[in-house]
Amino acid sequence: MSDKAIGVDLGGTNLRVALVEVDGGAARILDQRRRQLQDRSPEAVALAVGELSRELDAAGAAPVGIGAAAMLHGTEGIVANAPNLGWRDVAFGPLVAKELGRPVWLENDLSAITWGEHRFGAARAFDDVVCVFIGTGVGGGAVLRGELYRGAGNASLEIGHLKVHAGGRPCGCGQRGCLEAYAGGRALAALAQEAPEPLWLEIAGGEAGALHGGHLDEAARRGEARARELVGRAGAFLGHALAAAVTLFNPDCLLLGGTVWQGCPFLREETTQTLEELLPAVAARWMQRVEATLQDDAGVLGAADLALAHRVAARSSHTYGR
Amino acid sequence: MSDKAIGVDLGGTNLRVALVEVDGGAARILDQRRRQLQDRSPEAVALAVGELSRELDAAGAAPVGIGAAAMLHGTEGIVANAPNLGWRDVAFGPLVAKELGRPVWLENDLSAITWGEHRFGAARAFDDVVCVFIGTGVGGGAVLRGELYRGAGNASLEIGHLKVHAGGRPCGCGQRGCLEAYAGGRALAALAQEAPEPLWLEIAGGEAGALHGGHLDEAARRGEARARELVGRAGAFLGHALAAAVTLFNPDCLLLGGTVWQGCPFLREETTQTLEELLPAVAARWMQRVEATLQDDAGVLGAADLALAHRVAARSSHTYGR
Repeated sequence: MSDKAIGVDLGGTNLRVALVEVDGGAARILDQRRRQLQDRSPEAVALAVGELSRELDAAGAAPVGIGAAAMLHGTEGIVANAPNLGWRDVAFGPLVAKELGRPVWLENDLSAITWGEHRFGAARAFDDVVCVFIGTGVGGGAVLRGELYRGAGNASLEIGHLKVHAGGRPCGCGQRGCLEAYAGGRALAALAQEAPEPLWLEIAGGEAGALHGGHLDEAARRGEARARELVGRAGAFLGHALAAAVTLFNPDCLLLGGTVWQGCPFLREETTQTLEELLPAVAARWMQRVEATLQDDAGVLGAADLALAHRVAARSSHTYGR
Repeated sequence: MSDKAIGVDLGGTNLRVALVEVDGGAARILDQRRRQLQDRSPEAVALAVGELSRELDAAGAAPVGIGAAAMLHGTEGIVANAPNLGWRDVAFGPLVAKELGRPVWLENDLSAITWGEHRFGAARAFDDVVCVFIGTGVGGGAVLRGELYRGAGNASLEIGHLKVHAGGRPCGCGQRGCLEAYAGGRALAALAQEAPEPLWLEIAGGEAGALHGGHLDEAARRGEARARELVGRAGAFLGHALAAAVTLFNPDCLLLGGTVWQGCPFLREETTQTLEELLPAVAARWMQRVEATLQDDAGVLGAADLALAHRVAARSSHTYGR
């Protein structure tokens, strides 16, 4: 029996809302809307989610799940910190619930992606999945014993904020030496733009302001020393953090994805090498490394499926309940 | 209704077998036997477990749970590696089951301790517990959503083998730079004995061969520079590893214990300081740090309770089943 739900992917600058049909272990997007966020106030974003959801589901029958690029705090729909949206301690779940007139399911975006890949993608065959995405930032999610693991405060797998370099580069979170400050796309772009080498500029078409991790990675592949150093360091830190996660979780699947991961073969190589060096033998024996397959769709598919799994009766429309 | 089980604590040199009564959230040791292991072959140890179990429970009615100082491999009672016993790939669970004529429950010792503290000790009020013990070695266990989390291959929370220093000191596991090679009791004793300072020898009563972490810690507290450096480094590495675990698991409880932890106030201080510096704010907000309270009993209590929870019908006496 198939079922329908709305899956929402809320990034720092873009909103995507999809009507998803789930049929057992398969899911497909029936229709979708995208919107660039001009006004990024919580009220405006909640209004936009409401508008696009109604366009896709006029009857308001489909449960709504949101994957948001945010550190959540607890399970009541509170965003503790969403640096890219400029939010701190915002009760976003309740705002959207009020806008829609019914409860919604708010999830960290990486948890939604992890769930999507576990239900419909590359991690389908596995029960204990650690998923790490290297995109603009670095984040993760985990499925343990077949269920999404969120941690006590809905803040598990904040692997981007693992400290990899004592007193190192400042991170958007306010601390120093976080993995994300070296291996994320934003960090690699900043590092590239700080003091660009001639080859990097050539690869980027001459524009220093356009330099990103992919250009650095290409320069590294061509053998340029400073790019090799910067991307090599990012890979070493990333490999180190992944080894820590695998040593602690002993997953049967390490799922890797994200735009930077996909676009940077040199980074992948360096990361994998460090990871293999540092893994305890027992952890390594059980772990299969797989690449994400659902690409951009994992988040909306996962969020929609979570909304179905945690469907809340429409009559409780005035409370935001989980 | 109370119930009885045999809990076994199998260390590197000592065997302890206890008859435990469990009554809801309380447990007590009714009687127990200890034996020093002379012959540490798997067969001899299995025989000893059988003998002591029969002394405590002649009828053979109580289920038997074993917490072993070993990396397990999978859930069929296989010991992948027990450096202190000198075992590699030993089917120890089936051996004991054969000796007793009925199935037994084999658990990693730190998982048994974690479960004991969760059921009957300091972690009783918490659902997501990361437990780390700093004794001869450094090991850990986790209770997630109220259940023991073992990982895909029964090798989760191998925090002693988290790499804290690239290419660093060799570890008993065969790799380099493991946390255990710096912060465990064996490592601290080795470090102390390599090049003892006069003050350390004075504290240890003149005998270099008797030097251990406690002596180093006392020297550090008295301000001696090299002891401060060595114990300080151990604390920094330990704090770093704990911060990683908390960042990834987002537990509501970080439970710490073990002989070295308890006997080394300077180490505790240094560890705590690093941990607090490195924790992301969200993870810190949810986490309570508690000290283990059941001491040496946690392992046998936990193992006995796990045996009760996973009791296997006596009739399946010829198979080792989990």
